Amino acid sequence: MQLGGKGANLAEMASIGLSVPPGLTISTEACQEYQQNGKKLPDGLWEEILEGLQSVEKEIGAFLGNPSKPLLLSVRSGAAISMPGMMDTVLNLGLNDEVVDGLAAKCGERFAYDSYRRFLDMFGDVVLGIPHTLFEEKLEKLKISKGVKLDTDLTASDLKELVQQYKNVYLQAIGDNFPSDPKKQLELSVKAVFNSWDSPRAIKYRNINQISNLKGTAVNIQTMVFGNMGNTSGTGVLFTRNPSTGEKKLYGEFLLNAQGEDVVAGIRTPEDLENMKTYMPEAYKELEENCEILEKHYKDMMDIEFTVQENRLWMLQCRSGKRTGKGAVKIAVDMVNEGLVDIRSAIKMVEPQHLDQLLHPQFEDESAYKDNVIAMGLPASPGAAVGQIVFTADDAEAWHAQGKSVILVRTETSPEDVGGMHAATGILTARGGMTSHAAVVARGWGKCCVSGCSDILVNDSEKVVVIGDKVISEGEWISLNGSTGEVILGKQPLSPPALSDDLETVMSWADELRHLKVMANADTPEDAIAARNNGAQGIGLCRTEHMFFASDERIKAVRKMIMAVTPEQRKAALDLLLPYQRSDFEGIFRAMDGFPVTIRLLDPPLHEFLPEGDLEQIVSEMASETGMKEEEIFSRIEKLSEVNPMLGFRGCRLGISYPELTEMQARAVFQAAVSMSNHGFTVLPEIMVPLIGTPQELRHQVSLIRSVAEKVFAEMGSSLSYKVGTMIEVPRAALVADQIAKEAEFFSFGTNDLTQMTFGYSRDDVGKFLPIYLSKGILQNDPFEVLDQKGVGELIKICTEKGRAARPNLKVGICGEHGGEPSSVAFFAQIGLDYVSCSPFRVPIARLAAAQVAV
Amino acid sequence: MQLGGKGANLAEMASIGLSVPPGLTISTEACQEYQQNGKKLPDGLWEEILEGLQSVEKEIGAFLGNPSKPLLLSVRSGAAISMPGMMDTVLNLGLNDEVVDGLAAKCGERFAYDSYRRFLDMFGDVVLGIPHTLFEEKLEKLKISKGVKLDTDLTASDLKELVQQYKNVYLQAIGDNFPSDPKKQLELSVKAVFNSWDSPRAIKYRNINQISNLKGTAVNIQTMVFGNMGNTSGTGVLFTRNPSTGEKKLYGEFLLNAQGEDVVAGIRTPEDLENMKTYMPEAYKELEENCEILEKHYKDMMDIEFTVQENRLWMLQCRSGKRTGKGAVKIAVDMVNEGLVDIRSAIKMVEPQHLDQLLHPQFEDESAYKDNVIAMGLPASPGAAVGQIVFTADDAEAWHAQGKSVILVRTETSPEDVGGMHAATGILTARGGMTSHAAVVARGWGKCCVSGCSDILVNDSEKVVVIGDKVISEGEWISLNGSTGEVILGKQPLSPPALSDDLETVMSWADELRHLKVMANADTPEDAIAARNNGAQGIGLCRTEHMFFASDERIKAVRKMIMAVTPEQRKAALDLLLPYQRSDFEGIFRAMDGFPVTIRLLDPPLHEFLPEGDLEQIVSEMASETGMKEEEIFSRIEKLSEVNPMLGFRGCRLGISYPELTEMQARAVFQAAVSMSNHGFTVLPEIMVPLIGTPQELRHQVSLIRSVAEKVFAEMGSSLSYKVGTMIEVPRAALVADQIAKEAEFFSFGTNDLTQMTFGYSRDDVGKFLPIYLSKGILQNDPFEVLDQKGVGELIKICTEKGRAARPNLKVGICGEHGGEPSSVAFFAQIGLDYVSCSPFRVPIARLAAAQVAV
Repeated sequence: MQLGGKGANLAEMASIGLSVPPGLTISTEACQEYQQNGKKLPDGLWEEILEGLQSVEKEIGAFLGNPSKPLLLSVRSGAAISMPGMMDTVLNLGLNDEVVDGLAAKCGERFAYDSYRRFLDMFGDVVLGIPHTLFEEKLEKLKISKGVKLDTDLTASDLKELVQQYKNVYLQAIGDNFPSDPKKQLELSVKAVFNSWDSPRAIKYRNINQISNLKGTAVNIQTMVFGNMGNTSGTGVLFTRNPSTGEKKLYGEFLLNAQGEDVVAGIRTPEDLENMKTYMPEAYKELEENCEILEKHYKDMMDIEFTVQENRLWMLQCRSGKRTGKGAVKIAVDMVNEGLVDIRSAIKMVEPQHLDQLLHPQFEDESAYKDNVIAMGLPASPGAAVGQIVFTADDAEAWHAQGKSVILVRTETSPEDVGGMHAATGILTARGGMTSHAAVVARGWGKCCVSGCSDILVNDSEKVVVIGDKVISEGEWISLNGSTGEVILGKQPLSPPALSDDLETVMSWADELRHLKVMANADTPEDAIAARNNGAQGIGLCRTEHMFFASDERIKAVRKMIMAVTPEQRKAALDLLLPYQRSDFEGIFRAMDGFPVTIRLLDPPLHEFLPEGDLEQIVSEMASETGMKEEEIFSRIEKLSEVNPMLGFRGCRLGISYPELTEMQARAVFQAAVSMSNHGFTVLPEIMVPLIGTPQELRHQVSLIRSVAEKVFAEMGSSLSYKVGTMIEVPRAALVADQIAKEAEFFSFGTNDLTQMTFGYSRDDVGKFLPIYLSKGILQNDPFEVLDQKGVGELIKICTEKGRAARPNLKVGICGEHGGEPSSVAFFAQIGLDYVSCSPFRVPIARLAAAQVAV
Repeated sequence: MQLGGKGANLAEMASIGLSVPPGLTISTEACQEYQQNGKKLPDGLWEEILEGLQSVEKEIGAFLGNPSKPLLLSVRSGAAISMPGMMDTVLNLGLNDEVVDGLAAKCGERFAYDSYRRFLDMFGDVVLGIPHTLFEEKLEKLKISKGVKLDTDLTASDLKELVQQYKNVYLQAIGDNFPSDPKKQLELSVKAVFNSWDSPRAIKYRNINQISNLKGTAVNIQTMVFGNMGNTSGTGVLFTRNPSTGEKKLYGEFLLNAQGEDVVAGIRTPEDLENMKTYMPEAYKELEENCEILEKHYKDMMDIEFTVQENRLWMLQCRSGKRTGKGAVKIAVDMVNEGLVDIRSAIKMVEPQHLDQLLHPQFEDESAYKDNVIAMGLPASPGAAVGQIVFTADDAEAWHAQGKSVILVRTETSPEDVGGMHAATGILTARGGMTSHAAVVARGWGKCCVSGCSDILVNDSEKVVVIGDKVISEGEWISLNGSTGEVILGKQPLSPPALSDDLETVMSWADELRHLKVMANADTPEDAIAARNNGAQGIGLCRTEHMFFASDERIKAVRKMIMAVTPEQRKAALDLLLPYQRSDFEGIFRAMDGFPVTIRLLDPPLHEFLPEGDLEQIVSEMASETGMKEEEIFSRIEKLSEVNPMLGFRGCRLGISYPELTEMQARAVFQAAVSMSNHGFTVLPEIMVPLIGTPQELRHQVSLIRSVAEKVFAEMGSSLSYKVGTMIEVPRAALVADQIAKEAEFFSFGTNDLTQMTFGYSRDDVGKFLPIYLSKGILQNDPFEVLDQKGVGELIKICTEKGRAARPNLKVGICGEHGGEPSSVAFFAQIGLDYVSCSPFRVPIARLAAAQVAV
């Protein structure tokens, strides 16, 4: 069936009694077939269209060989989602020299020639790619020569002349006459709509918005109605409710004596929809009633186009209306209160991106700054940020201390920069993907970040950033849009996060509906409190290494540990760290009273804890810090250096090689747990061993941890129950999960590393080819952002099945970046995981996504 | 059943009519249970032993409370494989003050006290860990005080005195009396044998030799027979054939009037076994007959121990004899000719290591240089090499050109070093594992290499290598044993590879028996010829990038390609490379006439082709090479640098981002193929796309390759059939193999990369923890050497099943390093792969391993 199908909302509107101009819709499947067939119309489609038109409207004379009955057609995209680049323009299709006479006889000569010249302009521009400016020039010249200002001041004969000039434009531009056969016009237009599905802008839009389930665009062919037949006619667009605020009141624009394209193209400035009430009260009343009917029918806020021709209202299009986060939440709550939808439907009306908007600052008006966008990076952490540029973490802290708002600009960040990153209001990096250090840390804090912005060249030494031929110096103001990746020159006005009672209502529905638990990744007592406030039901990932950077004393002790050659030296350094770790754990246990806290043992390669700089600098700094000889330091650092650190000496490989490290961390956990438990808190510690690939590794670490627990419990005269489990992030672990489950009380998928190893993509280097892969359609999504369900997901399924077969009560969750990405959360819920853990600021999104998949 | 089981060769010898001293054997299962029970004898074992002894020999008075019938016991390891560290010493168990009198009455006082003092020495040393030197001192002092030179000059009363002194040694060393109860002695001895299974030397031996299927050691308890009862007695060891040459002639040593331990411990120098014929012709004749019986029974060359007591021959032990490669091959061929075994059995008598010995030079005598071993690295590529040290690839080439034999010593090698590596006779690196660049390249050439030798510190600038407090300078001689990892000071004598007709015979049997095809990894026409000569049935992996380093012009063209910013610049550089690639492919197709040649598209990250050195050097070198500005070069290099190159911009990611690269390579392949085909060669090209993770990637490359093929065929007016397939080295590819198989005509597992990503181990960095993992038993083997069947193997199985389900005639093979490792080859054959591909020098080993698994 080529006609009908998705996008056929005209037929649907007609079916519920609304006045709709006769027409037909070509299905999205036809578009798909067209693309796959090398841009040929599917067999039989053309005949079907002609037949369809005939059955719809006997009068369509022009297409059926009767130019004296000039009923024109509009051909436009009926895509399920409105997207830029799609051919969404109303055409007066069917006009030519013969038909225009018929039209003149019917509607007057001026109207006929005005329609004709508009049609020539649009058809040329949109269907044949002749630049609009070529037509515009002719119009402007004519107006000057006739001494008039407005288009409406031109007479019928002026317009007739213009028609001739426009036809010459065709000749010059395409070397051929304007196609006057209405059937040819129709065919070209249908193809143009299909082609617009594949336009670069439409592809980019779908990539950015992760729209991959659509087959193509439908095509609406409608008989034209005329909004420009004097003051009893007009045209308008509206939302059934205010899309920005959600207020229940028609929200739209109206133009008297005008066609729809005048509104869309911005040729004339439309009036508030309210005014229509005065001009044509009856049509307005019918419109209001239609809106109510449509909302009841579609159970949603609608985006509507209409035309009034000689006081008769025609509905031209309707679809679900786009809305802001604030609008979405209010509309959902209102519609439940109005009895229009139940909470199961309402929860689906709020999109995860809507929450992102509500939880982070946004720009007041994204369209206002478009001309100031100077570079594009990856939208690494959502929200908007405005500040003065600084180039070092130290400067960020210093300027912040002076009350300044700063944007930290780095080639890439390292754990050493964490202080400065925290002080900054936004972070911009030249390198690194969606899960680079900067991106992960920023998302953890809900701080705006644009990463992997390869357009910029950061020159630290001269404290400038070079973008093309622009040079921006320290202290200059820039703005970042972390939701789009835009880097904007200057200070753009911000609006703050918009929390509301309605949001609380929506979140309470989400919690009622979902089965999946949502925990948070949090490394400090402060993060833990934020997580709890955002509704986290525990901590699914506490990265102990982040604590190591919290102060100078700590990082010095860590470096002593790294430089240690003997186990004794290492133990001595670890003894210095123990009290810091213990006190952090105490704070976290206190904040998470009654909820589980999952603590991961040290994971990153040790060289990450070395200072930044060139080798000589590092060696001399470390020598003065540790009191060791420079050559010893040098040789130790040489030994630590790695070709592929991601696949190197890290994770449990550290704890197995240096058991005293695991012992210290376990000791800190258990001492803190017993102490907080003695203070009356309910402490539920879970120790998680990272980077396990074999059951032997886990057995080694588990037995170490359990023996430390026994010792600490004996020393402190008090014990408590705890769990020991493992991260699953090495593909091998997933493959031998049955054996690993024998040693583990829980599994937590580290989907970042699992994605890295399953794809063989380094998240730090993926920027070199990922953009190409996305643009060529080799990948649908960045797999570090949206879980790869077919590959990584398959491994997660295999692992979960094998693990639960070996240990039926095995707790299984995930704590990678995907834990806060809605489609990934849905996948985790569907395959039966027990929980997801994500950054505190994404907890509400995960709660919502978990509810949406449950309904 | 605790008694009997493996190692019970005594009972077996008795059963075929040989004279064996009565005794019993404790099974290996008992040893395993002992180890698992925290070193406690399994329940009931002790009672079973006593009962067993009673039923075996009623006379064992000492153990059954009758010291007047002094029949002594020997207790020793009966491990299936003789290994260092195992307790393999004959004990006169059962002696004490009472029993010694009975023994004196039976055999004379001198013999009795000599046995007693020997027993005290050995029991103390071996069972209780009292240093042998403490006893030795007493003996030496006594001899001095008595004024005698030889032990045999001591009188009975001297020895009696010595017994008392030895007892004092016990008191001082263990603070307790010598355990005089024979049952206690027996129990301690049995435990000592069990414990010796776990001794560090035995564990190390098993790790090195990849012995993991044994449960433990059996324990042989035998009644003692006495070789030291005058000149009608004696003891000896022999092989039934010469283990070095394979000659069919008894080969052994004999000592008149001596106990076995004298031979083993080297206290007295034994005579050639031939002499025994003169001393005791009848016993010798029986021994000869016994050897024939044993060879017929065990169908193998045997290693035998025996004692003659007063002209009566007693067989003490027999097991399969260890042999050299040369010996193994001759013995196998001879035994088939003698009708002793069929070729299915004979093929199992030649071990893969034997072939290694035959195919590479070896040291004449490995025991001769043990004191000169100055460092140990990884046995990266087998064989022996002797040469003068150089530190740069250029020096290696220059010295080699002067006719010198050189060993190239590097911290680690890079593709730039290939010329020097080829010129060197052996390669030694401080870093890198069994599959580091140096190791892989060296194995490909069959060149000796010791890699990852962390004992050494290479100082390039001063041209010295530091090992502990030794400093070795350029030009000094060293020797490398690539089969053991030993680095030896000085020039050690070599013997050349020992190829023979017998070897050809064995290999022809192997080819007759095996089902698995064996191909070779070869990158040049020369390698291809070597591969064909070694029996390769085609090339399974031709790495196109290795050709890039073959000359200065080539590498310069490659660097131009890398530095290109626009596709046009890149195409221009690629046009320079095309003729080189084409001529290499022509040579390879010519050499492989009639066999398939599998060509892999460019795989490594581009920065591997940059010159070595610090950044400044590279930039200036590249600027002069390419004529580009230094800052352009710098920025381009910056963009190429990667954090984890193994997971970065390489493999098909290059060919998809730069389609012109794939086009050039495909063009070179097809032009060469058509041209050689026109010259009358049978050309079977197969193009292999590396690092595929998604079907979309493969689809992109396959369509590019096929369109180039069409073009070339049209241009050259001739076509031929070819295949396009993919490497499977990314875990994701294995997981979605059904989809990938739709695009691929063959799969070739790249097990190096697959192992890296499945384990998350960088082969360049694994040296940091792998030794610890092996020593702690967390891993049984280096997974880069021996395929990890449980994890990586599981993925290979999943992939093969999914792939063949989607495309039943899919050809599946492997071309990673494991293709030449015997146990891995066996696995690949068992799971039904079609072929393995390995370095030309390992082809015979793979052929043998494939045959062994087939029989």
